[in-house]
Amino acid sequence: LGCCLLKFDLATVYVSDAQYNRNIFFGTSPQAVRLYLLYNHLFMQTLVYVFIIINLALALFEDPAVVPLPIWATSTIEIICLSAFTVRMVHYAKVIPRDKFWKDPKNICIIVIVTLSFIDLTIYGALKATGYFAIRWSRVLRPLLLVNVTEGRQLRRAFRSIRNALPQISYVFLLFMFSVLVFSLMALKLFGKRGLLTIDGSPYFTDYLDIVFDLYVLVTTANSPDVMMPAYNYSVFFTIFFILYIVINTYTFMSFFLAVVYNNYKKYLKEEVRQLVKARRFKMCRAFSLLRETCGEGGEPVVTQAKWNHLVKLVKPNISIAHQELLWSVLDDQNKGHIGKFAFVQLADLLSIQVITVKSQPHPIQICFPSMYNSSVSRFIRNVVHHRMFVYVYDLIILVNAVFIGLDEENPVVSNAEWGDFVLYAGGYTSRQILDIVFILRVLRLIRLVDSIKRFRAIINTLIKIGPTILTFSQLIVVVYYIFAMVGMELFKGKVQFFEPNSTSPDQEYCGNPLLKGTTFAKLNYCKNNFNNVVSSFIVLLELTVVNQCGFTAVTHVSARIFFVLFHIVVVIIIINIFVAFILEAFLVEYTVDKSDLQTSLEKKIEELELNVQQYVPFGPPIKLFSIASFLIKGLLLFYFPGSRTVDGLLQRMFETDLRTEDFNEEEEPENISFSNPAFDSV
Amino acid sequence: LGCCLLKFDLATVYVSDAQYNRNIFFGTSPQAVRLYLLYNHLFMQTLVYVFIIINLALALFEDPAVVPLPIWATSTIEIICLSAFTVRMVHYAKVIPRDKFWKDPKNICIIVIVTLSFIDLTIYGALKATGYFAIRWSRVLRPLLLVNVTEGRQLRRAFRSIRNALPQISYVFLLFMFSVLVFSLMALKLFGKRGLLTIDGSPYFTDYLDIVFDLYVLVTTANSPDVMMPAYNYSVFFTIFFILYIVINTYTFMSFFLAVVYNNYKKYLKEEVRQLVKARRFKMCRAFSLLRETCGEGGEPVVTQAKWNHLVKLVKPNISIAHQELLWSVLDDQNKGHIGKFAFVQLADLLSIQVITVKSQPHPIQICFPSMYNSSVSRFIRNVVHHRMFVYVYDLIILVNAVFIGLDEENPVVSNAEWGDFVLYAGGYTSRQILDIVFILRVLRLIRLVDSIKRFRAIINTLIKIGPTILTFSQLIVVVYYIFAMVGMELFKGKVQFFEPNSTSPDQEYCGNPLLKGTTFAKLNYCKNNFNNVVSSFIVLLELTVVNQCGFTAVTHVSARIFFVLFHIVVVIIIINIFVAFILEAFLVEYTVDKSDLQTSLEKKIEELELNVQQYVPFGPPIKLFSIASFLIKGLLLFYFPGSRTVDGLLQRMFETDLRTEDFNEEEEPENISFSNPAFDSV
Repeated sequence: LGCCLLKFDLATVYVSDAQYNRNIFFGTSPQAVRLYLLYNHLFMQTLVYVFIIINLALALFEDPAVVPLPIWATSTIEIICLSAFTVRMVHYAKVIPRDKFWKDPKNICIIVIVTLSFIDLTIYGALKATGYFAIRWSRVLRPLLLVNVTEGRQLRRAFRSIRNALPQISYVFLLFMFSVLVFSLMALKLFGKRGLLTIDGSPYFTDYLDIVFDLYVLVTTANSPDVMMPAYNYSVFFTIFFILYIVINTYTFMSFFLAVVYNNYKKYLKEEVRQLVKARRFKMCRAFSLLRETCGEGGEPVVTQAKWNHLVKLVKPNISIAHQELLWSVLDDQNKGHIGKFAFVQLADLLSIQVITVKSQPHPIQICFPSMYNSSVSRFIRNVVHHRMFVYVYDLIILVNAVFIGLDEENPVVSNAEWGDFVLYAGGYTSRQILDIVFILRVLRLIRLVDSIKRFRAIINTLIKIGPTILTFSQLIVVVYYIFAMVGMELFKGKVQFFEPNSTSPDQEYCGNPLLKGTTFAKLNYCKNNFNNVVSSFIVLLELTVVNQCGFTAVTHVSARIFFVLFHIVVVIIIINIFVAFILEAFLVEYTVDKSDLQTSLEKKIEELELNVQQYVPFGPPIKLFSIASFLIKGLLLFYFPGSRTVDGLLQRMFETDLRTEDFNEEEEPENISFSNPAFDSV
Repeated sequence: LGCCLLKFDLATVYVSDAQYNRNIFFGTSPQAVRLYLLYNHLFMQTLVYVFIIINLALALFEDPAVVPLPIWATSTIEIICLSAFTVRMVHYAKVIPRDKFWKDPKNICIIVIVTLSFIDLTIYGALKATGYFAIRWSRVLRPLLLVNVTEGRQLRRAFRSIRNALPQISYVFLLFMFSVLVFSLMALKLFGKRGLLTIDGSPYFTDYLDIVFDLYVLVTTANSPDVMMPAYNYSVFFTIFFILYIVINTYTFMSFFLAVVYNNYKKYLKEEVRQLVKARRFKMCRAFSLLRETCGEGGEPVVTQAKWNHLVKLVKPNISIAHQELLWSVLDDQNKGHIGKFAFVQLADLLSIQVITVKSQPHPIQICFPSMYNSSVSRFIRNVVHHRMFVYVYDLIILVNAVFIGLDEENPVVSNAEWGDFVLYAGGYTSRQILDIVFILRVLRLIRLVDSIKRFRAIINTLIKIGPTILTFSQLIVVVYYIFAMVGMELFKGKVQFFEPNSTSPDQEYCGNPLLKGTTFAKLNYCKNNFNNVVSSFIVLLELTVVNQCGFTAVTHVSARIFFVLFHIVVVIIIINIFVAFILEAFLVEYTVDKSDLQTSLEKKIEELELNVQQYVPFGPPIKLFSIASFLIKGLLLFYFPGSRTVDGLLQRMFETDLRTEDFNEEEEPENISFSNPAFDSV
């Protein structure tokens, strides 16, 4: 029996590994499996992320700080965090065999990061204690933990996608830089000897490297008319040079970057997803081989419904009986009472289709006051509520409300006439902060209105579908921003000062730096755009992402331009293009690809079983709620399909047509993935 | 015999119509065919474009003019142009049947444009003569002639592509505007009552429509940090609002626009090309049915080599015998002396593969001084030139030269050391203008260097391939720019004045408009960015395309913002995205699609015939020229493949894989195209 239990435990682990695309190689002894389950426990995973966030957030308190804390405090917190990572690493080392552990680059990365952080911390502490100048250089490594922890699969995939696209990008980039250099050479020849002056009174286009930088910035469109104006003021024919430059470099080459990134993104992602699906099938086959039994007449190996039920209960403890039966009926289409390998393998995919079961129950009023519920007044109200006009009126109220919100700033009378605020005022919540939040929430109700129009729903659905991926991208952005922020803070901290608006300091006019006297940077009051702490660094980097304005080069050495160009290459040319490529692909898929086969068959089965299928839409308009209510009245079991909401699910759906045609070669072990399971004959 | 000649004439017309994708319905009487041939004569087509360009260029001389001309002069020129268009239209009316003529919207368009222009000209002349205020409103219609002339097929296709994408774009745009409106409402609530001030000292985010405009401009990234700064200076938490806004509207929605345009572009273009190919096949079948004769044993209808040769000579009078024989050998693979329908239909495609025949002839020195050419010195020189090292040395010289060009500005000694300039100086050409051009040409030599690296050649090839399409896009841009320039000139002419740099006028500081006193527009010396004539209007519109900076709204009514928003929607959201979509698709095709089947078989045949195939590369590096020379020495006939350089060719190649699989249904008449030929049984 113990052996049998272990078999179920192992099978459960395989199925949930397949479901969540975990590729960890682990021992099969009861102790190893227990350790592995503990390692994958949600609490442990959350704890890791909490420590990572604390470690990253330390930048808020370290010099240059938003809220300064003494060095001993931040050091203690950092030591705790680093110890936590070490413990987690030791745990991981116990789960997987030693040789596998040392072969995995992400483990080496974490060990190196933790070691270097400890060394840096010691050196920094010692230097500070003796009064020397010291830099916390290991802070640059912190965000890399986010990439290298076991749970950072999506992020690693994004980085792999970038790494794979790099060779192609670099060829286009070299050609692009060549084009910029040639244009700069031409500009030097055309404008250098004409004695033109820029708006600051400095000579225009006389230094080759300055020209290269100016023309590079023109690609980001940041200095768009300014860089052209002196030449344009001199002669209208010189604009031809700039028009050519803009067409070739700003438009054509930037499109080339997008094309290369998009092409590579599609190509490699497809391969990654293929590997993922292969690994998943392989794990499911392992689980199958643990639970299979041969049919009486020496036929094919099968898994009985009893075993399957037990397994599903173990994988998803809170699954409802109805849901479980539904899944079984999808797999065991002919009601045999057992399923073969092919059907069994689909379980992982089936489980990742989110199905929410809503227990059918009568309306509370119907239970407590049946006579009142069935009265003609109640019936009339229900009819009114179900009527389409009711929905229209409801929408109209939302719209009128929105117009009133827009108008009330000017007219206090209108302000008092606002609908629905009385509850709020009655409660005595007049604090502006709370009001702001409430106002924003009220405005969001407008989305319901738009969502009820069919044409818009497809677009909104795409927006919602790409939501989880934006999470991966925001992690990517955080990693890159954090590294640039750390470097930027060391390079530029304190160079630009921000003075509160009511300050009377004479330095306020030039942001506390005489070098900025009279520059547009100071004139436009950009003083708060500085690298004086991690928060303002992040905001400056965001501004640089949108438009690369580099007022900072004025306050430091010219070579600081390298920082800005590098940032532009990494964030705008690579990461933003990958973001655009993803949205492009997601949008095209949403418009052209149908539902997955499995989802279709699941829906068909639900229809066969005379259950009702409802597409789940967040911020659903009232009509949705009412229709749900009407179903509830009919006493039916409801199933919602939020669709494949995970990134993996969307990716898989993207390439499903290609994946479907592949041979179903379950026995073969997946290549290129640091995952290969031992044979289980010995168990 | 007369009938036979007519048959050949007709067949010729069909084949060349197929080759150039002309879809004009014409009569089959000898007179009609002659008129039709005259109508399609290159001279006539060139003449039409000359008149269109003159008509468009009139804007340079009309008020507000670059070079003012009296009204009688511009009016006379315009009347000549309009008469020319009328004559062309009458000619066209004679070529095609009356009912077809009136059903074609482009004819109606031209007639309406010409009529309205005449009416406007009369009214304007009369009003001006009597001293009233008058607007030449019909100038807006001028660029539409470019779209509606028979030859503007590519441009019409581009406009059709835009029109087809419009419904989808408008849904996304409505949703995007909804999002902007909701964000503006939130901004009003968040910032309106805080009493914040912008850098100009005006209240910040208090007027709803102002907020909508500011946030719309933020999408173009033109006012990127400025619009955020007051809120950011007040509290760092308000940046969350802007971050959300930028992520959703600037990045996600702008990517959506690209996705929608790209998706529609692909979808409809494919359909258009499919129709084009169908129409082409249909025309070729008509030509076949004119020339076919049935084989002796009552078999399939065929065309004999004699007839085919005659036809090809008529279609392409300057074709070489070798080229003609090559084409025949490709079609008549089994040397039967006649070809069937399937092979015949391929003629149009075959003719559009550009094959340049280079007559093999010995080196001129070899002819004149055979002993000198064959001397050991000459042989040594030839060996040196053919050696790889020679090429490397040559490349090095170009590179060193480029570095010297870059350095010579600072150092006059280096300047004198420049290589290859002595001829130039010796000739006495020291004028700066000529030197500039020569310098630019010298720098372009660097491209040869880059082109010799294989990785870069693929990218450069793509750049060259999309060259012709950029011509179509530039026409598209000219049409849109011209219309906006005309409207912009009426709205904003004279509002901003440009003063020569050495002017002493006190108005210079604020561009001659007191409203601009103290604005950044005047401070940055943008005075030449005005709508005072058509050239500066075009340059302003280009600047608006790159970054939408709208300093103009200061000098006129707030409603002028509509002009800038409209321009942004039309040019940036639609046209630039179509441009990006085209480059994206062209790049992906270049990287993934192979050569066309026909081109491959043609190349194979050339190889079979032991001819040498050379890929033609513009700006070819010296090694190319030398290898050609070496082939010449061997006395071979050379074939160059410039590839499918026309837009149609590229498009057809893009979708060839899809088109190839379609059934070859030649008898069926193409639908949806305003072309259907009569049956020729009566001839």
